[in-house]
Amino acid sequence: MTSLRTVFFVSDGTGITAETFGSSVMAQFDSVKFRHRRLPFVDSIDKAESAVREIHQQAQADGARPIVFSTLVNPAIAERVHRAQALHLDLFSTFVAPLEAELGFKSSHAIGRFHHATDTDSYRNRIEAINFSLAHDDGQSAKNLVDAQVILIGVSRSGKTPTSLYLSMQYGIKVANYPLIPEDFERGQLPEPIRAFKSKCFGLTIDPMRLADIRNERRPGSRYASIENCRSEVSAAESMMQREGIRWLSTTTKSIEEIATTVLDVLRLES
Amino acid sequence: MTSLRTVFFVSDGTGITAETFGSSVMAQFDSVKFRHRRLPFVDSIDKAESAVREIHQQAQADGARPIVFSTLVNPAIAERVHRAQALHLDLFSTFVAPLEAELGFKSSHAIGRFHHATDTDSYRNRIEAINFSLAHDDGQSAKNLVDAQVILIGVSRSGKTPTSLYLSMQYGIKVANYPLIPEDFERGQLPEPIRAFKSKCFGLTIDPMRLADIRNERRPGSRYASIENCRSEVSAAESMMQREGIRWLSTTTKSIEEIATTVLDVLRLES
Repeated sequence: MTSLRTVFFVSDGTGITAETFGSSVMAQFDSVKFRHRRLPFVDSIDKAESAVREIHQQAQADGARPIVFSTLVNPAIAERVHRAQALHLDLFSTFVAPLEAELGFKSSHAIGRFHHATDTDSYRNRIEAINFSLAHDDGQSAKNLVDAQVILIGVSRSGKTPTSLYLSMQYGIKVANYPLIPEDFERGQLPEPIRAFKSKCFGLTIDPMRLADIRNERRPGSRYASIENCRSEVSAAESMMQREGIRWLSTTTKSIEEIATTVLDVLRLES
Repeated sequence: MTSLRTVFFVSDGTGITAETFGSSVMAQFDSVKFRHRRLPFVDSIDKAESAVREIHQQAQADGARPIVFSTLVNPAIAERVHRAQALHLDLFSTFVAPLEAELGFKSSHAIGRFHHATDTDSYRNRIEAINFSLAHDDGQSAKNLVDAQVILIGVSRSGKTPTSLYLSMQYGIKVANYPLIPEDFERGQLPEPIRAFKSKCFGLTIDPMRLADIRNERRPGSRYASIENCRSEVSAAESMMQREGIRWLSTTTKSIEEIATTVLDVLRLES
């Protein structure tokens, strides 16, 4: 029994699904350390055999058989990889069989299908969404706000930019984000360009202590980063969102993924 | 037998893993249409029961039992959700049992673990990488290029920006991207700021016809978008990369995920 194990992610595509999923499952075993090895684009028997050799070598070097998470659509390639001395966790075949039984159809076993096809509307939509979100980052442009599906608002460094990019990259959602700045609080009104779009605004707020930490990394010792200023901006932003009936959440302990999913859920957006 | 089926993604976290994986598997069934329903943050018995009710209602409305992909770490919550009338594909329990047997340890069944924890170095690293990549998009800044792990180069609209953002968001890699422009080709030299960093440059190229299409969407009928100009820029860029010994790939039919994974693979970058 060793406490360091090698984990292979073997896929005929990028292997991103296998690695994302495998990492989540392995995070449940805190007494074991895992070394990740990616083997993407294993889409021929030759490459399958070279993967088997690599897994074997690792088994010998480690003195323990590796763990293999795989997404291999082609049964002949999968069968070849399965010959390697390893614990095989085959995401594809495990779930395809029950789905075939349920749906009454055979799966197409088409390699391209398991992946991110580039010639689909949904792919083009994602790219368009990423470009939109970049062009509308940090209030850069008030043009075409009518096309935004979400407008994130909040004080500087509350998490708007990464959340916007994630929503467009993962879900193909067009997001604008608009900073709330001291001038807006003095005026007591939302920034002019977004007033007409209150129903698609969503606020991000943050604990002032955490905000001060983040801002201090950028501009150490500045008034901008001071805890007094952070407290006052956050409190003014929260009052404004409450007054305007804009839903919001605190990003303090939430990951980008959690914030993005919550925004979709609350605004009932379909991607 | 119906050709429209509802698929639920039930998770005590965001459900992103369940949905990404489930979508890939279902893409293998081209004769069935799937309606997606996300049920994130199902982290209590109450929420499990409300999920069960929603699945039941959908079963009745559809006249067919739904398909449920789930990632539920807590066994009591999972057991409750499994009572719903549905085909249950439980990603978590399916793979945890064989891993427990292999590793000789019980999994921690810790809900937080399955998710994106925000208080880890790797999370902070991702956020820092996203900020870096944004600040170094499109040659905006030549500062701190020494800190970049990859510098993507290529003609305008060859796919540099989405790839940079994806690499930082998914893998926490600091990416700069630098456009190759007609002035660089006249000079016959790489842009000055990146010359010192050739070993971490990676080129993106693209079929001139496809490039002309993309550019025409932005600036219809311009010289910039003309096929002659696209041909000449792409050919000059490829010659320059070859001369400088910079590895490159064509993005024409590749998704962001495929480009990003190939860049990691070729540069042997560890994330």
